[in-house]
Amino acid sequence: MEDAYFMQMAIAEAAKAGNETWKNPRVGAVVVKNGQVLARGHTHEYGGIHAERDAIGKLTPKQGQGATLYVTLEPCNHYGKQPPCSQAIIDAGIRRVVIAETDPHKLVTGKGIATLQQQNIIVKTGVLKEAAQALNPYYDFFYRYQRPWVTLKQAVSLDYRVAAEKGQRTAITNSAVAKMVHTERGNFQGILIGSQTAIIDNPTLLTTSPTKFPPVRIVLDRRGRLKDNPTLHLLTDGQAPTWIFTENSSLQDQFAKSIQVFYRRTWSINDILHELGRQEIQSVYVEGGPTVHQAFLRKGLFEELITYLAPQMLGEKGVPGMESPHQLHLAHQEIKVLENNIRIAGRKMEHV
Amino acid sequence: MEDAYFMQMAIAEAAKAGNETWKNPRVGAVVVKNGQVLARGHTHEYGGIHAERDAIGKLTPKQGQGATLYVTLEPCNHYGKQPPCSQAIIDAGIRRVVIAETDPHKLVTGKGIATLQQQNIIVKTGVLKEAAQALNPYYDFFYRYQRPWVTLKQAVSLDYRVAAEKGQRTAITNSAVAKMVHTERGNFQGILIGSQTAIIDNPTLLTTSPTKFPPVRIVLDRRGRLKDNPTLHLLTDGQAPTWIFTENSSLQDQFAKSIQVFYRRTWSINDILHELGRQEIQSVYVEGGPTVHQAFLRKGLFEELITYLAPQMLGEKGVPGMESPHQLHLAHQEIKVLENNIRIAGRKMEHV
Repeated sequence: MEDAYFMQMAIAEAAKAGNETWKNPRVGAVVVKNGQVLARGHTHEYGGIHAERDAIGKLTPKQGQGATLYVTLEPCNHYGKQPPCSQAIIDAGIRRVVIAETDPHKLVTGKGIATLQQQNIIVKTGVLKEAAQALNPYYDFFYRYQRPWVTLKQAVSLDYRVAAEKGQRTAITNSAVAKMVHTERGNFQGILIGSQTAIIDNPTLLTTSPTKFPPVRIVLDRRGRLKDNPTLHLLTDGQAPTWIFTENSSLQDQFAKSIQVFYRRTWSINDILHELGRQEIQSVYVEGGPTVHQAFLRKGLFEELITYLAPQMLGEKGVPGMESPHQLHLAHQEIKVLENNIRIAGRKMEHV
Repeated sequence: MEDAYFMQMAIAEAAKAGNETWKNPRVGAVVVKNGQVLARGHTHEYGGIHAERDAIGKLTPKQGQGATLYVTLEPCNHYGKQPPCSQAIIDAGIRRVVIAETDPHKLVTGKGIATLQQQNIIVKTGVLKEAAQALNPYYDFFYRYQRPWVTLKQAVSLDYRVAAEKGQRTAITNSAVAKMVHTERGNFQGILIGSQTAIIDNPTLLTTSPTKFPPVRIVLDRRGRLKDNPTLHLLTDGQAPTWIFTENSSLQDQFAKSIQVFYRRTWSINDILHELGRQEIQSVYVEGGPTVHQAFLRKGLFEELITYLAPQMLGEKGVPGMESPHQLHLAHQEIKVLENNIRIAGRKMEHV
């Protein structure tokens, strides 16, 4: 009961770490002795210190002795950008460590815990586990399945059209939606669109979330159509990395060095996600168009579907939104009204 | 200013008259003398007394002398189910009458007012006119345009399908929607469906709103398919009138006497609305399916579109909802979340 109380505090602390932790998980830590909170900490900007060190660093050398550390994720046990947190805990003289979630990476789960236990530190796990997991859904997914979390996002009319006519850019949703999408992008490490969308809409795909790590703009351009469109914003503005996946070898060396071209003779959706995983992209926001969306949908390679709906009809000449080959039930639906538009989010149902 | 204050009171009074006024408008009346409210009244159940008489009937003979009457709609001036209200006002010795809305029926507008003025009663009109009009949108529309108000209502999936497969009944929306639709029906005087919907879904089309005047169930059955489906609920349950519009003459005399068959060699949507108008049906709730909806939509013969949406995908085998031949913008949109479903209502834009 007391453990849940302090873990809740650690979770609140973790939530203070925004998107700036980037590829690192958001973690919170609280040091407690005799029922008194001595220090709190959370993950700093990517490359900076972790939550455990942040909290422990605020203690006097004597305070850590015999204290309990509450931490939302199993402490790391390896040298990355920072020395291992397990060592900092041992060095501080912490007597007991309460952990919400063990490391989601199947190959390293339990290593941090084992190191602590070897030093006779008492370890308890699983306290408010689900609440802690909700802090880093994409990170968890990525390390559990070795591929990025995929969110499909579409903007449709009441009659489920995404454009008034083929090849025509159509502003469907309102400015409240635009604002939300621009913010939402900041939660992802990659934003993926097809070449048709890149050419017709010429989007910047930037986020308004303050971040030093803007999501990578990923264009799926099998045929190499971008070659004839070298002035598009995302090829020229230099505001964020741009990666192109193509099956056209002549696309290599066509653009500024900052544009990365991934060439293969064929790219399946699975291949692309595998490559993005190799590049440590943990999450992708797929903005379409419908052909691209459908490719993900049909392979079941998505976890979430977000639909922004404007209650106007585009009419029968309009381009339909992504179609599913079969019935698709969504779980954990969330509906939000944005002035006269609607945001509908749902998770892919687990196969039963 | 004082007039608006008492008119607001009359409007609140009118709202107390529920659906029981049926073909009569909801009207409210307040009698005021020396700034004191002496009596209030509203339209009673269809066939019963009107608001003016309801209020005046509560006065002592002396009280009415020199008083002001606030009434939301121009007093009637003809013998219908009740003697004319204009006469009751004159008999009571009312000195001044404040009216929100003049009679919407273009041919009789002003007649009640003229009668009052001939008796030297001071008449003021237009106070809170729009609020008063909102009390009886269907009644107003009907008498203004001589045809019923049409609301198209559909239930669709996220991918805008109304059924999982052709000829298959599919429960799309949740029980909160079902409850709301059953209540909503009570606001209309007719519920219209096509024979396909009648046969596949076998609905009762009843309302749960308490009413002595349930909406008429109207089936559009050009080919006469109901002949082979004589056991359908709406043909046998006797819970509300059922009318059939058909182009198949052999449908006459096929059903119980309570079922009314309207036969013509051809029925256009315009013909049907004209006939419904002749039958004094002021408002129709068109529940589909999509072929029927489209027939109304394509002719522009509707005022309101209500879509109930369930955020699940029915997939590409599903039957699409009504399609518009052109872009259709809706005004006065109203969005309501019903648990995990959504109600989206919008008015047809006036042609500009």
